[in-house]
Amino acid sequence: MSKNAMLAEPGFVLAERDLQPLAIGAALLGTGGGGNPYIGMLRTRELIRGGAAVRIVPLDAMPDGAMVGRVGGIGAPLIGVEKIAQGGELLRALRAMEEAAGARMSALIAAEIGGANAMAPIIVAAQAGLPVLDGDGMGRAFPELQMTTFAIYGNRGTMTALADDKGNVVVLRHLVDAIAQERFARTVAVAMGAGAGAAGAPLPMAFVRQVAIPGTVSQALTIGRIVLDARGRRQDVVGRMVEETGATHFFTGKITDVRRDLLGGFVRGHVDLTGIDRWAGAAARIAIQNENLVLWIDGAAAAMVPDLIINLAADSGEPITTEMLRYGQRVAVIGLPAHPLLKTGPALAVVGPQAFGYAELEFRPLPDRRLPA
Amino acid sequence: MSKNAMLAEPGFVLAERDLQPLAIGAALLGTGGGGNPYIGMLRTRELIRGGAAVRIVPLDAMPDGAMVGRVGGIGAPLIGVEKIAQGGELLRALRAMEEAAGARMSALIAAEIGGANAMAPIIVAAQAGLPVLDGDGMGRAFPELQMTTFAIYGNRGTMTALADDKGNVVVLRHLVDAIAQERFARTVAVAMGAGAGAAGAPLPMAFVRQVAIPGTVSQALTIGRIVLDARGRRQDVVGRMVEETGATHFFTGKITDVRRDLLGGFVRGHVDLTGIDRWAGAAARIAIQNENLVLWIDGAAAAMVPDLIINLAADSGEPITTEMLRYGQRVAVIGLPAHPLLKTGPALAVVGPQAFGYAELEFRPLPDRRLPA
Repeated sequence: MSKNAMLAEPGFVLAERDLQPLAIGAALLGTGGGGNPYIGMLRTRELIRGGAAVRIVPLDAMPDGAMVGRVGGIGAPLIGVEKIAQGGELLRALRAMEEAAGARMSALIAAEIGGANAMAPIIVAAQAGLPVLDGDGMGRAFPELQMTTFAIYGNRGTMTALADDKGNVVVLRHLVDAIAQERFARTVAVAMGAGAGAAGAPLPMAFVRQVAIPGTVSQALTIGRIVLDARGRRQDVVGRMVEETGATHFFTGKITDVRRDLLGGFVRGHVDLTGIDRWAGAAARIAIQNENLVLWIDGAAAAMVPDLIINLAADSGEPITTEMLRYGQRVAVIGLPAHPLLKTGPALAVVGPQAFGYAELEFRPLPDRRLPA
Repeated sequence: MSKNAMLAEPGFVLAERDLQPLAIGAALLGTGGGGNPYIGMLRTRELIRGGAAVRIVPLDAMPDGAMVGRVGGIGAPLIGVEKIAQGGELLRALRAMEEAAGARMSALIAAEIGGANAMAPIIVAAQAGLPVLDGDGMGRAFPELQMTTFAIYGNRGTMTALADDKGNVVVLRHLVDAIAQERFARTVAVAMGAGAGAAGAPLPMAFVRQVAIPGTVSQALTIGRIVLDARGRRQDVVGRMVEETGATHFFTGKITDVRRDLLGGFVRGHVDLTGIDRWAGAAARIAIQNENLVLWIDGAAAAMVPDLIINLAADSGEPITTEMLRYGQRVAVIGLPAHPLLKTGPALAVVGPQAFGYAELEFRPLPDRRLPA
């Protein structure tokens, strides 16, 4: 990038009016999981009203050697929803990580743009006066900590700092692998009462720039603005989404069955739909592990991870999370293509359909009409 | 201390032949709890046979500003027995603590001389080439981490490093209080598979010298030597113990009932005895929370915490831990006075009978004939 671009202050400052569309867009990118960004949105609004300014900057705005921090809420398995308890716990986790790693962070990035954790770096950025990178490690939500492009493309660092709203701070200093990291982090989060903030080890900007999914904060904002604008104009929200985002409208139907079990700390199950409107007579099933994993229409796989399978309320365009699915709901199912970084061989080995146990499914990508940046 | 004493190298180097008496003495000072020092003894023997030398030094051997490390095994509540899994986990916990605290340890001390944790600092000392202080934080065993003279006399530091035999290392960086410390440490220990090594924050020697129970490594060794010597000469072990240590022989009897429940992570219950020999016709009961808490003879309290109530096999003088109590066993019950540091007002508030829930019991100390140093 040119020096002038630096001087002109790249990116944009998040305004209060951006927060609602950002929260809606993040929830949609959560593909059923990732938790609800609503409480995080309220925290951010308080901070902005109190005078904090958060700048969202593109991945090329920071120098190679700058250190990037990752923060997010981490929930107990039986709660499942990532929860931001109070806000201060995220900042304390970040400071504990800086101390443990002996490095100061120059910017923050979301590990997961889909759901509640989209707001986590924004809250901490407002508290610490840091910029937030326009990007994340998933481009959506996934059920496990290690399912990020940071891990997929070589980051083996497992050091993690955890803090709660009471003042307890725990640093997972060395862990033998990502499985141990996930297990210890969840265990400590449970002891913290399910409202723990987590911070990952610093990543150099040169690495983040190569492997982060770019532009996802802007994408969430754009998608959320489309929903709100269509709703305000009493337009067909799903129609506007399809028209403006390159999404595929797969199905609209009524929920006839929901199976949801807590297994191994995850919500697993499926939802069955019977078609309405132009899908009358057809049937759909969506398999779930926190997030929507696979969509079948009349028995044929129509979309699958890592592509995004998104359920919206057919009338309002409101995102429907896995916890909220219930019998009789009218749901529109749309698909968005995952970013190319999630569709390489190494990525599919971690977040493709076979990685989630669908041995018979070979990944077939949705048409790659890219999301608007 | 004089400079000459320093030059003469104070204390003594632990010999292989010292290990068995040390383990027996430590088990006796465990007053039924603290776990079995046997495995730790075998680890130490290996290290000494491999050429390691461990010097036990008196509390006045180190300068005021030297930093003292505490290490010990920490068990899962449902296992209850502090377990040294492999030895390396204790050293890794110590190194993690040094890194987190930004200080190098100059010596090690046992938090608890009673039971398995008597061996923990000796194992690490052999690995790290450090001296072990002749003393500890309890002079016996107690069921909770915070029941040490270090905590009783003002150390509020809660930082704790934990490591397992696989290579996972977790640092409890800040905890709001000792209760949170205990809870997080147990939780992480459980995630580590019940074989975790723990290291406490460094304590300055000037503080340790004032509040540690002095001479307890030597005491364990002396007591263990008495048992082994009496056994070798086919003498009455209990009689020799009473004669040489100032112990009170309270009771000898047969166990008629053992109640032992796992409640809140502790073994709680009692054991009933019916007298034999000169106690024929009398009955005794001992209340237990991991350790022996109170001894009643014919309904009258005869000894209570923090004084030491010790059960030995009536014939061999072998220490009988809480887990090993069983119907029909012939047991000699002896008492040893606790060190004066455990009998002050602040200490009794933490380790006196009322602190263990016996509201009706006012502490009445055993005659203070001191243990041989």
